[in-house]
Amino acid sequence: MTTDAFYMNIALNHARAMKGQTDPNPLVGCVIVHHSRIVGIGAHLKAGEAHAEIHALRMAGEQAHGSTLYVTLEPCSHHGRTGPCAEAIVQAGVKKVIIATLDPNPMVCGNGASILKTAGIDVEIGVCGEEARKMNEVFNTFMEQKRPFITLKTGITMDGKVATHTSHSKWITSEEARKDVHQLRHEHVTILTGINTVLKDDPALTARIPNGRNPIRIVMDSTLKIPLHYQLIQDKQAETWIFTTSIHDIEKRNALEAEGIKVIVTNDSQVIDPCNIVTYLGEQGISSLLLEAGGTINAAFLERKLIDKFILYMAPKVIGGKNAPTFLEGDGVETMEESIEFTDVSIEKIGKDIKWTAYPLYK
Amino acid sequence: MTTDAFYMNIALNHARAMKGQTDPNPLVGCVIVHHSRIVGIGAHLKAGEAHAEIHALRMAGEQAHGSTLYVTLEPCSHHGRTGPCAEAIVQAGVKKVIIATLDPNPMVCGNGASILKTAGIDVEIGVCGEEARKMNEVFNTFMEQKRPFITLKTGITMDGKVATHTSHSKWITSEEARKDVHQLRHEHVTILTGINTVLKDDPALTARIPNGRNPIRIVMDSTLKIPLHYQLIQDKQAETWIFTTSIHDIEKRNALEAEGIKVIVTNDSQVIDPCNIVTYLGEQGISSLLLEAGGTINAAFLERKLIDKFILYMAPKVIGGKNAPTFLEGDGVETMEESIEFTDVSIEKIGKDIKWTAYPLYK
Repeated sequence: MTTDAFYMNIALNHARAMKGQTDPNPLVGCVIVHHSRIVGIGAHLKAGEAHAEIHALRMAGEQAHGSTLYVTLEPCSHHGRTGPCAEAIVQAGVKKVIIATLDPNPMVCGNGASILKTAGIDVEIGVCGEEARKMNEVFNTFMEQKRPFITLKTGITMDGKVATHTSHSKWITSEEARKDVHQLRHEHVTILTGINTVLKDDPALTARIPNGRNPIRIVMDSTLKIPLHYQLIQDKQAETWIFTTSIHDIEKRNALEAEGIKVIVTNDSQVIDPCNIVTYLGEQGISSLLLEAGGTINAAFLERKLIDKFILYMAPKVIGGKNAPTFLEGDGVETMEESIEFTDVSIEKIGKDIKWTAYPLYK
Repeated sequence: MTTDAFYMNIALNHARAMKGQTDPNPLVGCVIVHHSRIVGIGAHLKAGEAHAEIHALRMAGEQAHGSTLYVTLEPCSHHGRTGPCAEAIVQAGVKKVIIATLDPNPMVCGNGASILKTAGIDVEIGVCGEEARKMNEVFNTFMEQKRPFITLKTGITMDGKVATHTSHSKWITSEEARKDVHQLRHEHVTILTGINTVLKDDPALTARIPNGRNPIRIVMDSTLKIPLHYQLIQDKQAETWIFTTSIHDIEKRNALEAEGIKVIVTNDSQVIDPCNIVTYLGEQGISSLLLEAGGTINAAFLERKLIDKFILYMAPKVIGGKNAPTFLEGDGVETMEESIEFTDVSIEKIGKDIKWTAYPLYK
């Protein structure tokens, strides 16, 4: 079926193939159709390089004249690192432009479409709009809220535990699920954990898959307890940023900085408020954060409505234990009416485990 | 496709339709085929009444002569409440008998098939054997272990909790899931809970669906704390049995017995051992038990390997809380190697919730 949705889905799939490599830019795909044939196809590959429409227009060449162009995101209108795509589309003589979703970037939103319409191009907006928005959930949150999109990831048993009462947790999930986690790390700009997890596991927090990109590793460590010989300090596999409070040890800070570690002192006096971390990361242009922490930190983020997406790997086993920790500790809510419900819940089998993806609906 | 499996599946489905009404007998279905037409079909409806084969033979009448008979369980060989089916099959002149699974009842096992073979009937065993065994998992456990088949049922949030830290739990799951629980109660001979759940909710533990059969309600109450005005004592909707210990209050026991409640005193001095309950129930001919208890009792049953099946209704929501209870408390295991894994895991959407069915693999 060569409907508009058919071509837009090709553009969406083309865009999705670049997941994790366009940051801080969104994923964008473009398909140009002339006389019922695809004459150009393109995706945005990397920030600073050509946009999807430019790749597709170059491929189409003369055939762009009189064509229909499908693009998953509104063509840009501003002279940024590359020229405005809307003008290039006009100059190529495209007849009709079908856009999945407008650009949440306030510098663009609606302006790109206006340029096209003013030039006499037939413009249609909203084809596969929902899929296109979801594909760029990270970029949208960053643009609209000026903070990273935050995904909580955890591996749990069917009784909700992340470890036994003796803190033993190797392994809850299957090898396949743990591999999937490395893919998640690859797709994130930053990964955050707490000092207790670090002290327990001495983790590397790297993306151990072929061609894996390591996220910047962030640790919440209010008194700078992290040992200098730990992997996060010594392995130089990726940057390590440590958030601490005003009560930190100055000498330890100097030692960490001498190892090339970035130490960020929040204005918290005891416990680090996740809001301070998230605001700082937004200011640094960090668009995504993978939360791989324990139940106390997870709960602190959740209470501040700072978790955008949950990814749970649930292993078909139980361990029991009144004192075995779950992935959401803290105080929790008091009544069921205050519970946080999820929308867009999907489940998928990974190895022996079930992977849940769900979006919280904050009240 | 009129293969043997085709006819056996008709017999299995016919048998399954009687789920919950044949106790203490197994579900059995029978199909008789002659000249490629079904000439008789039957299921066992109720203990003390005709077996599936007898219903099917009566329907087939003269046409049973020279037919092939499909039956989900080995025909009986003993003179119990009804005559032996194996002999009836021989007398009817059946030519071939296809049996899904042998009868685990030691009074029958293999004898029924022997009678048929001795009479010159062609006998085949094992067609759809796995499905037939699973259909009668309750009966098989009762026959082989002389104790009820025990199913743990719980409703949990995605963070494994059964209530908030203030013990609020109404409601975790959707109306559809709660309706499904009433169907489960209908299918069980007994239901068990602990005194803490009773004190908190004053539950009726009845099967509130059209034509619902109420299970016998069992409470673990070591000191007979249950208030006399509670539903389980007053509503007379079903029998209530209370297990207690030697430290119970004699006057309270008399008052309960005066209300028609059965009080069973175990030889435990403080905490009731689930083994004592289960052994007693087995002696009373109770074939199934639905465990609808809190995390402490669930863990006590699990530690003794007394849970045969888990049914979890998982609601797409979280509540958090270090002190919010999960459905498996107690001590739990120490290391992940000791975790209890599941087999035959299936998931199904019920309303907004996910229903998990899984069988523990004890080491």
